[in-house]
Amino acid sequence: MRGAVLHAPGDVRLDQREDPAVVAPTDAVIRTVAACVCGSDLWGYRGVDPVTRPTPMGHEYVGVVEEVGADVELVRPGQFVVGSFFASDNTCPNCLNGYQSNCLHRQPLGAIGCQAEYVRIPLADGTLVATPGTPDDAFIPSLLACSDVMGTGWYAALAAEVGPGKTVAVVGDGAVGLCAVIAARELGAERIVAMSRHASRQRLATEFGATDVVTERGDEGIARIREMTGGIGADAVLECVGTEQAMAQALRSARPGGNVGFVGVPHGVAVDGRELFNSHVALRGGPAPVRAYLPDLVERVLDGRIDPGRVFDLDLPLEQVAEGYRAMDERRAIKALLRP
Amino acid sequence: MRGAVLHAPGDVRLDQREDPAVVAPTDAVIRTVAACVCGSDLWGYRGVDPVTRPTPMGHEYVGVVEEVGADVELVRPGQFVVGSFFASDNTCPNCLNGYQSNCLHRQPLGAIGCQAEYVRIPLADGTLVATPGTPDDAFIPSLLACSDVMGTGWYAALAAEVGPGKTVAVVGDGAVGLCAVIAARELGAERIVAMSRHASRQRLATEFGATDVVTERGDEGIARIREMTGGIGADAVLECVGTEQAMAQALRSARPGGNVGFVGVPHGVAVDGRELFNSHVALRGGPAPVRAYLPDLVERVLDGRIDPGRVFDLDLPLEQVAEGYRAMDERRAIKALLRP
Repeated sequence: MRGAVLHAPGDVRLDQREDPAVVAPTDAVIRTVAACVCGSDLWGYRGVDPVTRPTPMGHEYVGVVEEVGADVELVRPGQFVVGSFFASDNTCPNCLNGYQSNCLHRQPLGAIGCQAEYVRIPLADGTLVATPGTPDDAFIPSLLACSDVMGTGWYAALAAEVGPGKTVAVVGDGAVGLCAVIAARELGAERIVAMSRHASRQRLATEFGATDVVTERGDEGIARIREMTGGIGADAVLECVGTEQAMAQALRSARPGGNVGFVGVPHGVAVDGRELFNSHVALRGGPAPVRAYLPDLVERVLDGRIDPGRVFDLDLPLEQVAEGYRAMDERRAIKALLRP
Repeated sequence: MRGAVLHAPGDVRLDQREDPAVVAPTDAVIRTVAACVCGSDLWGYRGVDPVTRPTPMGHEYVGVVEEVGADVELVRPGQFVVGSFFASDNTCPNCLNGYQSNCLHRQPLGAIGCQAEYVRIPLADGTLVATPGTPDDAFIPSLLACSDVMGTGWYAALAAEVGPGKTVAVVGDGAVGLCAVIAARELGAERIVAMSRHASRQRLATEFGATDVVTERGDEGIARIREMTGGIGADAVLECVGTEQAMAQALRSARPGGNVGFVGVPHGVAVDGRELFNSHVALRGGPAPVRAYLPDLVERVLDGRIDPGRVFDLDLPLEQVAEGYRAMDERRAIKALLRP
């Protein structure tokens, strides 16, 4: 089969890779219906994370189950499934606590590589969620978004304790930041401030439910958020970037006693203990336990209540995976969908 | 009047200081019935925090109101009062959000110096809580404890979302850590692990409600907590020290999705963003909004439900303030009460 492989920074190719097969009795193999490029894939593509050997890429996917191992009970061949970017057993104490992305037996799908025609999904019963029947093609992008960015935006909002009446600021206007706007709206936030400098992303944020847009960054961005909140700061800030600047902006935009949910993979981020202490702000982050939210998110998509698939503004055949990476790297695209 | 002044590391003296008077119309002046030495007073006493000039000391107090300014409405002369270590108006947005220690008009009592015969209390109505009548002498230590250490332990527990059924670990066996045990018990924790190496403190922790004691520290302490919690970690960890080691121990003792409440004033603490991300642990700290809890805590004391005053294992006349500092510095005493 063919699958994307990162050979060096800037060098993604569609290579011939071994056909996946059921290895463990809890595995499934799916035929990929759609995959995509994640903002976090760019850390390696840009050489920020080292690329030490040819690396299969991609951790987001929807597909049709081809084959299941002997111990798989819930997932059946022929089902259309959405899965999370960490395989999880969904039965260990961490899973039962709602942190499937910290499952005692978790396996990162990123290490398997989902930008490919077929994918082996470990712990299929605890990782995949089947849709009722085969969904209409029009739902594919939004269901795919649930696999990571929508689930991650959802977690950011929950980690920051977004709820009815709250004022929420979203740092980052990538696909996760935009999905975080959707999450804040669905969770009842009263005011949602999208921090973005890009007209097209501002527009999408507004359509997703942002009530305000702030174009300033850094200290000026913080000052604007404070100005909009009576000098106090936002109740909840969703950090969807992962840089030190974004984290500082998030922490300083939250009110005393407020919450920051951070879902950008931190690169060079250190939080000063004294500053955090004096701020009274709570901080929770991590890789989103997408599996916990998938049943609910899939239902919201199929009910037409949310349409996170609109973050895909580039729709390419898998052959053109390199162009998908390039377009996202150059910020010509918010997110690239790939169809095998 | 006489009040304690820190002249240099290790050099606390009872000096003649100017008699306090009502300055702002929202001030009150109290005659101090009891004050005490705080673990945080030792940062300066030990020279960890610089001592640049003679500094009045102390921020914990109970007393009787002597005089009030023209705008003070709730507090009356003759009342017995307990106050928090930050003066707060109790009406600003941060106060209304429950973060009186981040009041827009807050004033640290530590800058005024409460180890003294009289104290000027700014924003008296928003800072002081009067007891119903004059309490029996036996309640003085516990009421005094509410002024900081009991309120701080309470906040640590709330910040870590302690509640019924939870497993809680307490890092630090000083007065705050011991009061945090009381808080965890009152808030319904099922299992409370006190981390302590000192027999007398272990005993008090157990009497306060600790169900287990762990004597190991660092990696061994973390391993013990994990062992006791099925390999997962505690639901809530209360960090009551403020050093980098204590914070690392707290973060690594909490389960994925767990909570750390940190109330030790951080000294040289930096939290690695990636580690916090991967842990899924939430972190909230800060100077406790004691004023928010005072009415409830005072009631619990007078009802005999909590007795945090037992942390005072040294009871001295104010004249012997230097001995109070020495005894705490040398860990001969958990906490020294001072009576003017």
